[in-house]
Amino acid sequence: MSYGYLGKIIRLNLSDRSIKIEEPDDIFYRTYFGGKGFVAHYLLEEISSNVDPLSEENKVVIATGILTGLPIAAMPRFAVGAKSPLTGGYGQSEAGGFWGPELKKAGYDGVIIEGKSEKPVYIYIKDDNIEIRDAKHIWGKETGEAEDLIISELGDRSVRILQIGPAGENLVKYACILNGLKHANGRNGLGAVMGSKNLRAVVVKGTNKIPFYDNKKISEIGKSFLSYYMENPLSRGLYEYGTNGGLMGNNAGGILPTHNFNKGEFEGAEKISSETMNDTILKKREGCYACAIRCKRKVEIQREDMVVDGKFGGPEYETVASFGSLCENEKLDIVAKANELCNRLGIDTISTGMTIAFAMECYENGILTEKDLDGIDLIFGNDKAMLQMIEKIARREGIGDLLAEGSQIAAKKIGNGAEKFALCVKGQELAMHDPRGKVGVGIGYAVSETGADHMIIGHDPLFQKEGFTLDAIKPLGILEPIDPLDLSWKKVRAFVYLQRWWSFFNMAGICDFGPAPRGAMPIKDVVALVNAATGWNASLMELMTAGERAINMARLINLREGFTREDDTLPDRLFDGLKNGRIKGTSISREEFKEAISLYYSMIGWDEEGVPTKGKLLELNIDFN
Amino acid sequence: MSYGYLGKIIRLNLSDRSIKIEEPDDIFYRTYFGGKGFVAHYLLEEISSNVDPLSEENKVVIATGILTGLPIAAMPRFAVGAKSPLTGGYGQSEAGGFWGPELKKAGYDGVIIEGKSEKPVYIYIKDDNIEIRDAKHIWGKETGEAEDLIISELGDRSVRILQIGPAGENLVKYACILNGLKHANGRNGLGAVMGSKNLRAVVVKGTNKIPFYDNKKISEIGKSFLSYYMENPLSRGLYEYGTNGGLMGNNAGGILPTHNFNKGEFEGAEKISSETMNDTILKKREGCYACAIRCKRKVEIQREDMVVDGKFGGPEYETVASFGSLCENEKLDIVAKANELCNRLGIDTISTGMTIAFAMECYENGILTEKDLDGIDLIFGNDKAMLQMIEKIARREGIGDLLAEGSQIAAKKIGNGAEKFALCVKGQELAMHDPRGKVGVGIGYAVSETGADHMIIGHDPLFQKEGFTLDAIKPLGILEPIDPLDLSWKKVRAFVYLQRWWSFFNMAGICDFGPAPRGAMPIKDVVALVNAATGWNASLMELMTAGERAINMARLINLREGFTREDDTLPDRLFDGLKNGRIKGTSISREEFKEAISLYYSMIGWDEEGVPTKGKLLELNIDFN
Repeated sequence: MSYGYLGKIIRLNLSDRSIKIEEPDDIFYRTYFGGKGFVAHYLLEEISSNVDPLSEENKVVIATGILTGLPIAAMPRFAVGAKSPLTGGYGQSEAGGFWGPELKKAGYDGVIIEGKSEKPVYIYIKDDNIEIRDAKHIWGKETGEAEDLIISELGDRSVRILQIGPAGENLVKYACILNGLKHANGRNGLGAVMGSKNLRAVVVKGTNKIPFYDNKKISEIGKSFLSYYMENPLSRGLYEYGTNGGLMGNNAGGILPTHNFNKGEFEGAEKISSETMNDTILKKREGCYACAIRCKRKVEIQREDMVVDGKFGGPEYETVASFGSLCENEKLDIVAKANELCNRLGIDTISTGMTIAFAMECYENGILTEKDLDGIDLIFGNDKAMLQMIEKIARREGIGDLLAEGSQIAAKKIGNGAEKFALCVKGQELAMHDPRGKVGVGIGYAVSETGADHMIIGHDPLFQKEGFTLDAIKPLGILEPIDPLDLSWKKVRAFVYLQRWWSFFNMAGICDFGPAPRGAMPIKDVVALVNAATGWNASLMELMTAGERAINMARLINLREGFTREDDTLPDRLFDGLKNGRIKGTSISREEFKEAISLYYSMIGWDEEGVPTKGKLLELNIDFN
Repeated sequence: MSYGYLGKIIRLNLSDRSIKIEEPDDIFYRTYFGGKGFVAHYLLEEISSNVDPLSEENKVVIATGILTGLPIAAMPRFAVGAKSPLTGGYGQSEAGGFWGPELKKAGYDGVIIEGKSEKPVYIYIKDDNIEIRDAKHIWGKETGEAEDLIISELGDRSVRILQIGPAGENLVKYACILNGLKHANGRNGLGAVMGSKNLRAVVVKGTNKIPFYDNKKISEIGKSFLSYYMENPLSRGLYEYGTNGGLMGNNAGGILPTHNFNKGEFEGAEKISSETMNDTILKKREGCYACAIRCKRKVEIQREDMVVDGKFGGPEYETVASFGSLCENEKLDIVAKANELCNRLGIDTISTGMTIAFAMECYENGILTEKDLDGIDLIFGNDKAMLQMIEKIARREGIGDLLAEGSQIAAKKIGNGAEKFALCVKGQELAMHDPRGKVGVGIGYAVSETGADHMIIGHDPLFQKEGFTLDAIKPLGILEPIDPLDLSWKKVRAFVYLQRWWSFFNMAGICDFGPAPRGAMPIKDVVALVNAATGWNASLMELMTAGERAINMARLINLREGFTREDDTLPDRLFDGLKNGRIKGTSISREEFKEAISLYYSMIGWDEEGVPTKGKLLELNIDFN
């Protein structure tokens, strides 16, 4: 009997409709832990290089982790992976919600989806019963309607539905995957991979209990977490204000992405702040499976000129900034509508906002004209134009067809200097954190295996002085405060350790908001939870090494796909000064940044070209040729 | 207030007789932890390269660790370090006993001794009182007599005395340092460094309690250790049979060093076994400070032809093999006498036995003649000759003056092919573990910063199958059994992790026989003890990184002294087949071994030449130019 995991992985081929159950051994689980570890493992072993991400040779790996579904805060997550159509490299994105725990209740740790269906289908998993079902009647529908149709067809309101929307069907390069209509595996365009396979949804219903090793210990840790949580201002803030709680602070610090990262301060910030949201459109605070933090927002608007349906959740910080300050829109209602639209259509809010901001700046500079834009006056701040553009992208209508390729490819096609307005790393658009005010984010963007990704690091400011957060990460060996603008070896070193820690989160199914440093759970309790869940005697070191293992496997995939050290950098704009705000004029030194990347390689056992050394790979038990 | 450590280090200059108390900050302690960490730090920072180890420019660093003196088994240890006169590189050796805890009771974590006294002196530390006292009347005396003189002079039987013997005074290159007449900082010739400074002893009396953070937790861990200990066959064996308990097993396995490592099986093994010792000369089982394991032996012989005084303890495995099978002496009485002599004279039993065996083989091959040997017929098995030789070496009489240089230097001076009989790494003689039957020991010998050293690894056989020991080290990420003869990346990887773990032991003051894998204490309890002692929230990862830090600092010192990757190898003999026993004919493949060393470098972040990369150093917080 296994604990923490089920020991069963579904392998399903949409081409020949075969369904197999694989049963990896315990050491496999203790090596890869699930989530990102599984994704990296299967992609590394099973996909050859130069596969077209949207061809039947690509595979979709959906994986829970050993902690997914623990009856405790911040452990609901699962990862989806495939070769990314947006970056052309290692593609992976995590989500919370309720789907991951449901899959484990059905008896499986993950699903590997191969091949391509001739016709639209969805997968239905109910415990031992696994079906590939026709989805012709759902294809083309928005997500909300599709959910209703599936529920009514299966006659079960309690199923959990992971699906793409029209954007995924239309192979928008940053189409996302949604569960519960609002929890998104948002980035890397994995929705398009499902779309390319004619796979609309994976529907799950599980009726079993997930077996954990020591339920008493788990419950103890859960209880103590609740008390830490009540005392922790970050966690309390997440409840009270959601992830958008930091927007005003970012604005005050001059690092709120504004006007496509030209600026760091936005005049309309207060109007899109969490305080304003709390006072106006907030309907409810929501959370994921078993989570007490409840950082999610449900917003509703019921006016004659504007309706926003609460079942699509509400905008998080990334979405507020992407459709707010970044595009210089100061209307929170419009942000909420943009969020709803993205969730209806199945498209990543960050890349969508960034791609629209890119188009706005092209328009501002005369590189795109009103004619190019199907007659839309896409100036910064034109909120209605922004909403129109979302629909156009998701449906690949007019200019939307070009922008659906992502800003980097669109910029190449547009030419005339458009490229300098496409702010991407490895083809993926920046998230809403400006490295010019927290340089660790810059390292994170640059070396992330998935391209610019806000899941990597955004926490430099938390370690700048003595206190709870610094104390909490001392077990990683980071003993002294580090300034957010410090780009010396101390920052690189902190990043190295935290990257492993967060990489492990993405393997195990942990949300960044649960454990230290961003959450209230002490590092040692995470280790204790791993052991209480599984019955192992794992250590922090083992978990960190696992995190490192996944990072290195993902790196091998990117190297195989032709990425080089030249790709581990930032868009030019970030090496220029910010145009307003508290740190106006501040930029990242190109020279120092390059040195930091070299030092990062050297610290983690990669050569000057960013290639893992043989010794490092073998140390990590990656016996790969 | 500090816990676990006192925050005070004595810096004492014998040239100008100045005495200072230094008070490093808490981060210093959490970075270096004490012991080996302090030694490496001070030697790296304060000694320039090419210093003559026996000059006043060398320094002696005596350092306890953060756990030294815990009222719990296996935490009595401290390290002594200096540039080694035997290896010419990083010199360090640890000891148990009662001296380390006593120093902490006096209020100090360590003593740094600089300069050189004009006349023989000893240091007397009693709490706040620190004196440099005349030692003219002690100089030249054997250790037992010196102890009596000091005790009577100070009028206090309860003082703890760390001293050298005549061998140290005579600058024998492998002179040791003893506390309590029987606990030795045995290796690397550090006794000669004290001797060169005219420093005979460091006498300590402390009347304070060592402050620990959470005495209740410490006592809990201590109690659970006792129950683990009772169930653990390795620990029980140590009590019942001492370290010599493994001798018969080694002999059966064909890896008991015999006839100067020509053979692995000794006909007379049973006669020098622990079983024989138990039945004959064993007087008492003894232990170090607060230790329940009691692996130490007290032997006594009171016959007309042979008297062995119990106050000098009894021979451990290394000593039994060095003066037994290695020299083909099958008389346990003689082994006991040799041990007593070495402790009376202050000389390392391993290097002494090895140097005598070297001379025996030279004699056997006609390279040394009876005339060269002052008329002694030094054939293998001539037990009386062996005893004579010990005295000659310690007193540098006749041939002893040459052999006192260590077998490597002696071999060079002798010439005529003698070098192939001097079995050293970096100038230090092999300990009593034959890498041909447990290849991890070979890696340990080769890369050890102190030259061939039995403290590094000798445990390959423990991990060869599923069971307690393998389970116990799983938190290090070693999940599968590894064959003792396996020299693949799996062995290298296990070594890498265990080397860090043991390196940490030598920093914190932990004995190898306490925690897993050699002892019964689970790894997580060691981490818990660190935190209970100090009040920190350290993790296993932090401890392992600390261990790695010390390894890298010591490496930098050796590189500075001119060592290269050519020095990270084994004596030629080990690449030849064993001449008898169970694994007769077995040798280490020179090619495979070289590859293993390259892989070791690559795994730990050193370049092809064995030089730590800049990134690795900075990751370890070694900001050193």
